[in-house]
Amino acid sequence: MTSPTTPPPPTQVGSTSRRATLGLLGGTAALGAAGVGWAVRPGQAEAAAAPGSAVPFHGDHQAGIASAVQDRLHIAAFDLRTNDRDAVVRVLRRWTAAAERMTRGLETIEGGADPAVLEAPPEDTGEALALPPARLTLTLGLGPGFFAKTGLAERRPAALIDLPRFKGDELDPARSGGDLVVQACADDPQVAVHAVRNLARIATGTAAVRWSQLGFGSTSSTTPAEQTPRNLFGFKDGTRNIAGDDAASLVEHVWVGAGDEPAWMTGGSYLVARRIAMRIESWDRVSLREQEDVTGRHKISGAPLGATAEHDPVDVAALPADSHVALAHPDANGGVRILRRGYSFVDGSDGFGHLDAGLFFLAFCRDPRTQYVPLQTRLARSDAMAEYLTHTASGLYAVPPGVRPGEYWAQLLLEG
Amino acid sequence: MTSPTTPPPPTQVGSTSRRATLGLLGGTAALGAAGVGWAVRPGQAEAAAAPGSAVPFHGDHQAGIASAVQDRLHIAAFDLRTNDRDAVVRVLRRWTAAAERMTRGLETIEGGADPAVLEAPPEDTGEALALPPARLTLTLGLGPGFFAKTGLAERRPAALIDLPRFKGDELDPARSGGDLVVQACADDPQVAVHAVRNLARIATGTAAVRWSQLGFGSTSSTTPAEQTPRNLFGFKDGTRNIAGDDAASLVEHVWVGAGDEPAWMTGGSYLVARRIAMRIESWDRVSLREQEDVTGRHKISGAPLGATAEHDPVDVAALPADSHVALAHPDANGGVRILRRGYSFVDGSDGFGHLDAGLFFLAFCRDPRTQYVPLQTRLARSDAMAEYLTHTASGLYAVPPGVRPGEYWAQLLLEG
Repeated sequence: MTSPTTPPPPTQVGSTSRRATLGLLGGTAALGAAGVGWAVRPGQAEAAAAPGSAVPFHGDHQAGIASAVQDRLHIAAFDLRTNDRDAVVRVLRRWTAAAERMTRGLETIEGGADPAVLEAPPEDTGEALALPPARLTLTLGLGPGFFAKTGLAERRPAALIDLPRFKGDELDPARSGGDLVVQACADDPQVAVHAVRNLARIATGTAAVRWSQLGFGSTSSTTPAEQTPRNLFGFKDGTRNIAGDDAASLVEHVWVGAGDEPAWMTGGSYLVARRIAMRIESWDRVSLREQEDVTGRHKISGAPLGATAEHDPVDVAALPADSHVALAHPDANGGVRILRRGYSFVDGSDGFGHLDAGLFFLAFCRDPRTQYVPLQTRLARSDAMAEYLTHTASGLYAVPPGVRPGEYWAQLLLEG
Repeated sequence: MTSPTTPPPPTQVGSTSRRATLGLLGGTAALGAAGVGWAVRPGQAEAAAAPGSAVPFHGDHQAGIASAVQDRLHIAAFDLRTNDRDAVVRVLRRWTAAAERMTRGLETIEGGADPAVLEAPPEDTGEALALPPARLTLTLGLGPGFFAKTGLAERRPAALIDLPRFKGDELDPARSGGDLVVQACADDPQVAVHAVRNLARIATGTAAVRWSQLGFGSTSSTTPAEQTPRNLFGFKDGTRNIAGDDAASLVEHVWVGAGDEPAWMTGGSYLVARRIAMRIESWDRVSLREQEDVTGRHKISGAPLGATAEHDPVDVAALPADSHVALAHPDANGGVRILRRGYSFVDGSDGFGHLDAGLFFLAFCRDPRTQYVPLQTRLARSDAMAEYLTHTASGLYAVPPGVRPGEYWAQLLLEG
């Protein structure tokens, strides 16, 4: 049996795209509908990419941070199973090439679904064949263990701290941490799952899946002109999130700057991942007034309490002091902002007659020590909403800067 | 605090629809896009409902069986917490009214998100406000325990057997069975989750969630003209599924007939639910030839082995005798067919470095004793694909016939 690392034998039935593969076999009949937005549009701004189309993989920053938020998430963390840095580099090279192809709507490698190569396992697992790119973004992060295991402990960023234990945390270690994390976001969950699964397959022997989480509904748009999504408390979420086209705020709050340490992180960011179980049954028994007082916004309109429209200015002093918005607002936190990218989840039942539901919180920031940690310390201590929330998993990852053509993910760290 | 069963106080700010509620508050700006297909089209054939639009709730048969398959699933089973048949009837009445409204894109009850009723919990949890109906269908099934607990054991259909243990079954009781099941399918998972959650909420005190499963990608279309979806083995699945507009096949294989027992089930069906874990990592290490031999079809085209096009006739005798298609084909099973409606799932990781992935198999049939049981007995014993599958949960449910305006789910059973 051919190992997954062996390139397939040369063949005359080359396939350069999912569409081309299907076309060769006469299976194009149904592509009229499915092919909407198929074409790659590398010149298009990320934030404006139409649903179904491709988001450029290359750039100064990784896609999937400031990009317009897609509606489906599959995120997975990996444990390195080796201390061999060369093996890790080989995986990162193959991951980068596969990721770039998959975000264009192609198989993981050229000819990866080639039907002429019968005696080898297909290089691509196939379940995304003929599906459009679906705005797939793949975003890589590195956990503390990555630096230790690859002999690069001295290059670990000081900002990549071990997060403190926050009040109320009930973290499951099996669902937390990890040496590597890949955030896959797409308009079609099959495309996101296919991407994570194929990266996991490429890493076989070098890294193994530690945890994996699906999310089904974005709760934090980065495109304020669109309808603000609602979380499982039924409230609009992310009304004042950092917009993907707000370059000044991204520079101030999200991207690691040229003057920040270490230099290889310039243009990168830090990803905070928190699995937050929501006590939706308790919440649902609370009066609308109390729900709104706890949140600090009106439920239907999303307006700050006492105001009339969602985007009306927030007057922190006019809100209940322990409301979520009052405590999380930049005005109450020395101007601190983070870019949120969370997704709702339902993971079956909790075994007590309820759904195991919540928010998979994802946020990007320039320095978690001065942004996420003080913010979450405050919320965990004082937020009236904390009564309805339990943080059940946690991770912090250094997100390297974007990849240029010919480079691989985290190359500057590994070779700089 | 108002109990969930108390109707809200009268108010002058009535809200008759999600759109109307938002409109009252000036929140219509974003509805141009979200409102696509919002309008209810009761005269429209189910199978032709456009994505985003409403599927009629009322009819001879429940929606969600022959209806065009939506791409997202949330299915939940419930245990009755009472033997009080009247309490169960009250829940079924409220479930039916809420289900009918939600499939039209409305809140669970009229005025259910009314912002004027501040001192009561909102009757609708809110996360689907302003979302289109998304072709939501809600399909009710009754497990064996329903009949025992409501004192209707003598009305339990003979076809609602306790499924035998099939070879290789490794069933988790906590994820199997249940007295009631609700299958929610929609184009938007937030709409499906909202529906299940609000039905669970209505049932509080009478029934509690036993298990719940999300599915992200349909694997069995009921509209053969559309592109056949692929399962997580990368193969097209459901090529020869019963089409939703094939009335003759539905009558023969899916709907309980007027001559079948019991009479209250006429127009109903039986739902088989099986959670099937797929060993995708093992599968991915197998050559394309072996994958195709195990399946009995070509991977890319979906054509039967030796044929060229997906819908070419299947010659069972020409396929490997232990291939999945050869064993499952009607020609090899005395003409037996079932209507499949399965969804792919990924439930985190398996704790051994892999994704916990598979197929949530859903199938409807007229009599499981003569259809599903012999078919699955054969597959479990001889199917070459069984090496890559483990059935980890199971349920069989009697699906009552459709509901007419003014009736409630299973009324004929409970009052007939």
